[in-house]
Amino acid sequence: MTVLVSMITISGLTAVGWAQPPKHEPVKASTNELPREDDQAVRNIVAGYEKAWNAHDMPALAKLFCEDAQWVNKVGMYWRGRDEIMVAHTAFHETIFKNHSYRTDAVETRAIAPGVAVAVATETFDGFKAPDGRDWPKARNRLSYVLVKGPDGWKIAHGQNAEVDEVAAKHDPVKKERK
Amino acid sequence: MTVLVSMITISGLTAVGWAQPPKHEPVKASTNELPREDDQAVRNIVAGYEKAWNAHDMPALAKLFCEDAQWVNKVGMYWRGRDEIMVAHTAFHETIFKNHSYRTDAVETRAIAPGVAVAVATETFDGFKAPDGRDWPKARNRLSYVLVKGPDGWKIAHGQNAEVDEVAAKHDPVKKERK
Repeated sequence: MTVLVSMITISGLTAVGWAQPPKHEPVKASTNELPREDDQAVRNIVAGYEKAWNAHDMPALAKLFCEDAQWVNKVGMYWRGRDEIMVAHTAFHETIFKNHSYRTDAVETRAIAPGVAVAVATETFDGFKAPDGRDWPKARNRLSYVLVKGPDGWKIAHGQNAEVDEVAAKHDPVKKERK
Repeated sequence: MTVLVSMITISGLTAVGWAQPPKHEPVKASTNELPREDDQAVRNIVAGYEKAWNAHDMPALAKLFCEDAQWVNKVGMYWRGRDEIMVAHTAFHETIFKNHSYRTDAVETRAIAPGVAVAVATETFDGFKAPDGRDWPKARNRLSYVLVKGPDGWKIAHGQNAEVDEVAAKHDPVKKERK
């Protein structure tokens, strides 16, 4: 937020004060706000990821990624390039995620450079049984997408997921500050 | 890696083989390779984060971030803006991380757009006691940094961390592919 200090001279008196913006001045976007159509395109990618996941549609999922995209999943697996990302997703959607789905609850977007955006999605991720046999209960996930705008529109360049630990969340120092 | 298959005709015989690149051809950088000095600057930021963390030097840590940086930690806490990131880090470094340290084991960098890089760091993170009383044992972390180059050099625009689940890691479909 920019705050202007103005010098106002009235009848020979000088006052220093906080200037009010002119009433009909257009609202100035924050420096990291995406243009409306880019914001919509980025949200469409995030929505497309959910749709492809829930339909277990791997070709649709693959289209969302740059060729050199990378991905870190919530247990720290690290896949380099769209091919690896798709090998992993295909293997899991044939097995542990065969009937799995999730719901996107909130998406926050921002520009970090021209043609580069970050979207943070908060999701409700259904429970599943991991390949190692452990049961993962239904949980919130928080997923950072890094997207770039290329000749074919916005694509995912990088992504990382985390599971929200609801016990830890009660001790978030920022949440305490906000009280 | 690009592999060339060449047709070589010798004395009327045709052989198919793996071509060796001409000896004096300049090495072609991959499209997402950072220029050397940017790569070094990005690695300096990642190293600076470790140094500031281990020294619990909050002013040094703050200097690494863009003002509008965001951060998702490994338990899914989501901080918006450098001020929130610093409130959280300061609170934790006065308490649970007062004597904590970690070691960066590997860093992979790449450019995703002009002046925008992603660095993925794999770290050995010492154990600690969480504010909710739980003991977190020593573990590997995997941390994605998204960095932008501005007038003051490279800064962190976004970060997200995850703990590597070593049990799950044995079932990484990509690792299986690599065998």
